[in-house]
Amino acid sequence: MVSGGLDSCVTAALACAEGFELAFLHVDYGQRTSKREKQAFNNIADHYQVRNRLIANAKHFKKIGGSALTDTSIPMPPADLNRHNIPSSYVPFRNANLLSIATSWAELLGAVRIYIGAVEEDSSGYPDCRHSFFKAFNNVIKEGTRPETSLQIVTPLIQLNKTDIVKKGTALQAPLHLTWSCYAEEELACGKCDSCLLRIRGFQNAGIPDPIPYQKN
Amino acid sequence: MVSGGLDSCVTAALACAEGFELAFLHVDYGQRTSKREKQAFNNIADHYQVRNRLIANAKHFKKIGGSALTDTSIPMPPADLNRHNIPSSYVPFRNANLLSIATSWAELLGAVRIYIGAVEEDSSGYPDCRHSFFKAFNNVIKEGTRPETSLQIVTPLIQLNKTDIVKKGTALQAPLHLTWSCYAEEELACGKCDSCLLRIRGFQNAGIPDPIPYQKN
Repeated sequence: MVSGGLDSCVTAALACAEGFELAFLHVDYGQRTSKREKQAFNNIADHYQVRNRLIANAKHFKKIGGSALTDTSIPMPPADLNRHNIPSSYVPFRNANLLSIATSWAELLGAVRIYIGAVEEDSSGYPDCRHSFFKAFNNVIKEGTRPETSLQIVTPLIQLNKTDIVKKGTALQAPLHLTWSCYAEEELACGKCDSCLLRIRGFQNAGIPDPIPYQKN
Repeated sequence: MVSGGLDSCVTAALACAEGFELAFLHVDYGQRTSKREKQAFNNIADHYQVRNRLIANAKHFKKIGGSALTDTSIPMPPADLNRHNIPSSYVPFRNANLLSIATSWAELLGAVRIYIGAVEEDSSGYPDCRHSFFKAFNNVIKEGTRPETSLQIVTPLIQLNKTDIVKKGTALQAPLHLTWSCYAEEELACGKCDSCLLRIRGFQNAGIPDPIPYQKN
């Protein structure tokens, strides 16, 4: 599962390093930066020479609304990396929708693993980013697919923080310069939203320069 | 969740009889008869005076393919009500995709129940129609939604057969004349596909006339 962000890029690098043949799935759920994310998705797929690509639409999230990520009438939450509540960018049950699409495709492909770059500690408090959620979803896959299907979600970044992820990606020569993290802009990353701030802090703490440019304030 | 078929209509009748305020969700996943199903959905919603309606698109199933229900190049399986294998009309992990959409919407609405008319015994061997699947999915909902969300899937028909369902629907004065069950046609029900045969047999065994017309062979 490749959004086109830092975490999914490093996750793809890990799956590749473990010797799996890769298939890339991107889900367009009507998020603000979907066009730019698709470009990042395709650039990372080109880098890893992935032919099996699927871009799925889940635009019902736009109809459902309720999140600043899919509804431009809701302001993006002010950046706050120490928050304890669920921010307005939370898209309800998003990861279950994404994993359901992935499982349907994976079952058709005969795949054995679904890699997803979810991060628990760093996840801004979204309930569907927790380890317990993925564990429960693996059980749904077991119960809801063909008996011969042997498919598992793996979350190799779940216990890491952004600094570890930047270091790991750099060690694996993941194409971090091709990734897109910003929630707000599509030309130059804003450098101000939660997602940009997490990324910038990760690179800083890792002592590695962030290879993408940012808006000048 | 209202496909527009017999089972979802009786399920809606049950939810209404239990005193819940209804919201109707239909998912268009590119199935052959989607236009006719939407008409049935809206007719049943009109009958119950439901204002809160959502028609979601999950057309990635068409891209994923692999099922006779969404890929017209795959022939519909010949009718066989005694089969033990999974027929070619199986859409991989379909119900998880449907329930994920339903959960996202339900969380936004603040709903407390998701009613789905799944039937285990009568379900043509689809793995995602089993009681154990729904039980596992309830656990995913618990793990993947806001702490204040209190939402449960209920499957009131899961242990019934088609005969029981026809009887129950008739007793509840469900508008069975507005439902659409055929997998193959959109004008007049074919009377030959698995879904039509199950329905016809259900009405026959219940001793109740099926209120919809069929193609003459």
